[in-house]
Amino acid sequence: MATRPTDMSNTLQEASITLGPIPGSRKTYLQGELYPELRIPLREIQQTDSRNRDGSIEHNPAIPVYDCSGPYTDPETPIDIHAGLPATRWQWTAMDTPLEHRPEPSSAYGRARLADAKTADLRFQQRREIRRAAEGANVSQMHYARRGIITPEMEFVAIRENQGLEKLRASHPELFRAHRGEPFGAQLPERVTPEFVRDEIARGRAIIPANINHPELEPMIIGRNFLVKINANIGNSAVTSSIAEEVEKMVWSIRWGADTVMDLSTGKHIHETREWIIRNSPVPIGTVPIYQALEKVDGKAEDLTWELYRDTLIEQAEQGVDYFTIHAGVLLRYVPLTANRLTGIVSRGGSIMAKWCLAHHQESFLYTHFEEICAIMKAYDVSFSLGDGLRPGSLADANDEAQFAELHTLGELTQIAWKHDVQVMIEGPGHVPMQMIRANMDEELQHCYEAPFYTLGPLTTDIAPGYDHITSAIGAAQIGWYGTAMLCYVTPKEHLGLPDKNDVREGAITYKIAAHAADLAKGHPGAQVRDNALSKARFEFRWEDQFHLGLDPEKAREYHDETLPQEGAKAAHFCSMCGPHFCSMKITQDLQEYARGQGAEDLEKARAQGLQEKAEDFRKLGKNIYLR
Amino acid sequence: MATRPTDMSNTLQEASITLGPIPGSRKTYLQGELYPELRIPLREIQQTDSRNRDGSIEHNPAIPVYDCSGPYTDPETPIDIHAGLPATRWQWTAMDTPLEHRPEPSSAYGRARLADAKTADLRFQQRREIRRAAEGANVSQMHYARRGIITPEMEFVAIRENQGLEKLRASHPELFRAHRGEPFGAQLPERVTPEFVRDEIARGRAIIPANINHPELEPMIIGRNFLVKINANIGNSAVTSSIAEEVEKMVWSIRWGADTVMDLSTGKHIHETREWIIRNSPVPIGTVPIYQALEKVDGKAEDLTWELYRDTLIEQAEQGVDYFTIHAGVLLRYVPLTANRLTGIVSRGGSIMAKWCLAHHQESFLYTHFEEICAIMKAYDVSFSLGDGLRPGSLADANDEAQFAELHTLGELTQIAWKHDVQVMIEGPGHVPMQMIRANMDEELQHCYEAPFYTLGPLTTDIAPGYDHITSAIGAAQIGWYGTAMLCYVTPKEHLGLPDKNDVREGAITYKIAAHAADLAKGHPGAQVRDNALSKARFEFRWEDQFHLGLDPEKAREYHDETLPQEGAKAAHFCSMCGPHFCSMKITQDLQEYARGQGAEDLEKARAQGLQEKAEDFRKLGKNIYLR
Repeated sequence: MATRPTDMSNTLQEASITLGPIPGSRKTYLQGELYPELRIPLREIQQTDSRNRDGSIEHNPAIPVYDCSGPYTDPETPIDIHAGLPATRWQWTAMDTPLEHRPEPSSAYGRARLADAKTADLRFQQRREIRRAAEGANVSQMHYARRGIITPEMEFVAIRENQGLEKLRASHPELFRAHRGEPFGAQLPERVTPEFVRDEIARGRAIIPANINHPELEPMIIGRNFLVKINANIGNSAVTSSIAEEVEKMVWSIRWGADTVMDLSTGKHIHETREWIIRNSPVPIGTVPIYQALEKVDGKAEDLTWELYRDTLIEQAEQGVDYFTIHAGVLLRYVPLTANRLTGIVSRGGSIMAKWCLAHHQESFLYTHFEEICAIMKAYDVSFSLGDGLRPGSLADANDEAQFAELHTLGELTQIAWKHDVQVMIEGPGHVPMQMIRANMDEELQHCYEAPFYTLGPLTTDIAPGYDHITSAIGAAQIGWYGTAMLCYVTPKEHLGLPDKNDVREGAITYKIAAHAADLAKGHPGAQVRDNALSKARFEFRWEDQFHLGLDPEKAREYHDETLPQEGAKAAHFCSMCGPHFCSMKITQDLQEYARGQGAEDLEKARAQGLQEKAEDFRKLGKNIYLR
Repeated sequence: MATRPTDMSNTLQEASITLGPIPGSRKTYLQGELYPELRIPLREIQQTDSRNRDGSIEHNPAIPVYDCSGPYTDPETPIDIHAGLPATRWQWTAMDTPLEHRPEPSSAYGRARLADAKTADLRFQQRREIRRAAEGANVSQMHYARRGIITPEMEFVAIRENQGLEKLRASHPELFRAHRGEPFGAQLPERVTPEFVRDEIARGRAIIPANINHPELEPMIIGRNFLVKINANIGNSAVTSSIAEEVEKMVWSIRWGADTVMDLSTGKHIHETREWIIRNSPVPIGTVPIYQALEKVDGKAEDLTWELYRDTLIEQAEQGVDYFTIHAGVLLRYVPLTANRLTGIVSRGGSIMAKWCLAHHQESFLYTHFEEICAIMKAYDVSFSLGDGLRPGSLADANDEAQFAELHTLGELTQIAWKHDVQVMIEGPGHVPMQMIRANMDEELQHCYEAPFYTLGPLTTDIAPGYDHITSAIGAAQIGWYGTAMLCYVTPKEHLGLPDKNDVREGAITYKIAAHAADLAKGHPGAQVRDNALSKARFEFRWEDQFHLGLDPEKAREYHDETLPQEGAKAAHFCSMCGPHFCSMKITQDLQEYARGQGAEDLEKARAQGLQEKAEDFRKLGKNIYLR
């Protein structure tokens, strides 16, 4: 990139991208069967051996886990953010849809930016061709699915969802010990097949957000019958942040587990920022195109027009945005329903459209032109994320008439999108107290025909600014359990400021917890494996393995080391919580060793007889063990 | 205190106690009616006025909130931790039970420590008389309650539970707008009366942990039909921490909202540490006496005896401990049930008793001497916290035979304690996935006869060491909603190390969130007032009020100021998240002003007619407002 001096503060010069493997993990790849060219990423958490007291050694297998961190955590893959990630998807077996290959953007704005000398320094330098379906054709995953075609993307996500656990299931069945879930109607197959994926996509119960202009993408799936996903929001505003920081925030977000990233930039150079992000992103990128449209009319909502918005959609679709949040459910007649709310309309997109509707005494152009929008979506395979412009911004406004009226309209729009074979997910809450969360999921499933639900939180109380990642994780875990397919993270800075890198990490990990707690509660097959492996490591005082199996190995180690920094303490059979003479786990190991030593038969006898005749043996055995 | 040099690292010399009001709050006191000598503490969060666009000013009332921070946040009360807090309860109207007043401890250990020259430097210097019920008498709150007597403690907690909201309800009914809760059988009166408290105590559905030797106490109540409470654990271990730090940790914990504090010290000088903590504590202090008993036999569980344990109970009861965790449900026949667990026994007390039972081939002395323990408890009014020695330490072990067998035994023991009119709460989980949490509450209510449930977490996944305050807050909010009366906090250091002050704050706030989310979901009358007030402040850009109404005003301000440090930004009608031109709240205010300006009648008409004829007016009005 250009390194010559510039008077712009938003250059990329300070870009510092976080690279390297996650501690204790090795990146591996699985291969496709229908499409052998597919390399599906996986992370294997290495474990050390267990050393039993009798001197025997037990091998603990590597635990494979779903991995969305992209090539950034693979030391074998060279990274050059100025070149972007390789356009891998374009090398996969091509489908039968006729495509147009364009050298230039077809949006007026895209062409203008390309010709703009003032932003040349900021521009991502590598230009790729632009693809779109030929006139009248449809490249959406849903369109293929409904024609019975399994695409490479479908096989990719099928293999990815299985997390490479098949081999482990055969070799270490004890790790798969798990409780029965309560799936609330979700149907979670023990093994996800490409055909299952195809069927779910065809029914509209899942989406693969995968714009054909985002060839750098490692596809993923969002649906109630798959692993619960999380989204991280990044983006600059007029007040703060630079392009470089935003690219790093994307890389940073996916390192900590973000399955998709939304670029919510509203400040300067959002076209250029977006290009840098997408070219370097292995995860789907979502946007809210109305934000940029509003920038184009200098913030005057009344001046927005369908033509300008349409050009923005095409501009962004040609950059490779994978899903668009579109607040097409904010209807003119719903706006007055918000007048008596405690916090009115808190969605930016929702309030912009409400303002437009009132100012023009017309129905929203997003609603009246919805079929034209569908025509754009299917030409690039951009998925709808139908925005909840009237979501509640406080507990007081939860589940009110305005919110559910809009949700029902989103259901109507879903049917229209599906008529065009365009993929759809539905956005939801918000601020909702716990006892009212379930109704959100039920309403969505019923009125939006099981299209995947994508919710922000919900926050379960309003009284903890600075801790809204937690107020909302409580709600997110529950709504994920009830069936939400993707959880939009909330960071500690919510309501207070723009998240920095620490906040992004905190928000992402918090939401991974919520998503995983939901997977466990639903009874997702294989979800408990990692919990079991970590608990076994914990019980056996394999500290390093505990750290590595956790969602944030670095923080776990750092916390441990605050009180016991010595390297030797990592092998110690105690920790600083209870000290060496006071560890319940250690005492229990003594008990278990005793029980195992006598064999299962003896154990049964002992159990029946209250262990009386065994007690003396134990006393001899255990007396000296306790203090080592 | 002594300041001469000492070779002990555990001196109190570095004690630095956090004092001063919580930002934006004023401490006030309510007076008793039955007992006019009672001063019930309350915190009033001050608010600024709303400035409407038409120039009118709306007064926002102070919001009273429950306050457990003690005199430390009251600038009017002098603090001297060397003198301890005033023995206020001893000045309240005396009940009719005959008491013995002793100048010396009656426990052998207590007397020995008093005579020990080596620890003279560490000792709390002010000695108070020791009280106990006369032979055969009973000073428990339950005993009074069952005789129909309303004690000062009962009136105190009744007034405290109402949070001073009566006046506000009359003056600002709109703040009480709230959703209907789902109480799962809890019965939450709109106004708590002393008679309601008495009745709940008599039935065993609530407890007031209030040792007569803890006259510094501001009484509080734990029960399903009251506000959900939280406990913070503090305590040194053999590895780290000093007395001074522990006293400050207590003060610090209650500042952030801990309703009770457990002193779980296991290291040196635990007798002296405890004395310092109790003499300075306005909240109930709980302990696990077996920890100290074990120290007395140098960590050899087999050497524990009933006589030694009994002396420890008396020692601690005479210091003023308000509740004892006693693992009397770990029966000999249950121990083998844990042998095939993934993580065995993870309760320290549970593992100690399991070891003792096996070593002696006898039933636990806590179980066989349970009625003698009851006799001690009622002489001082120490409450039972019947310990869950067999709680699950991993998801894999959740809700297993061992756990529920013990729970059923705790139910039997509850009946025995109640026969002696001794107050009881029951400890619970642990690690439990979400779909299995409800069963814990249901089992407890049924088999322990609605005695208050006091749970640790539960953690809803095992895979996030470093974030277990969050994995467990998800479970705690749910089990609190289902009926748990007190939530034992978990800090970010859980499983990794001893919490420092930051961890205590993080754990306490996280659990206040869980408890409040539970209150809201149950439909506790008045719970939503603070949420409503904060949301209104948020919507009106009253930044200072937002900070002050939150659970952690300091952190909220700090986060806000990271991006907008200027003092002027606190009055700004925007924040760094969206910037000045992009704020949905601001746009909505424009909308609402428009709607209100036309009056309610017009609004109805507009709603019916799709707002068409109003739109033009709005356009004129709003066009220039948006950019100010």
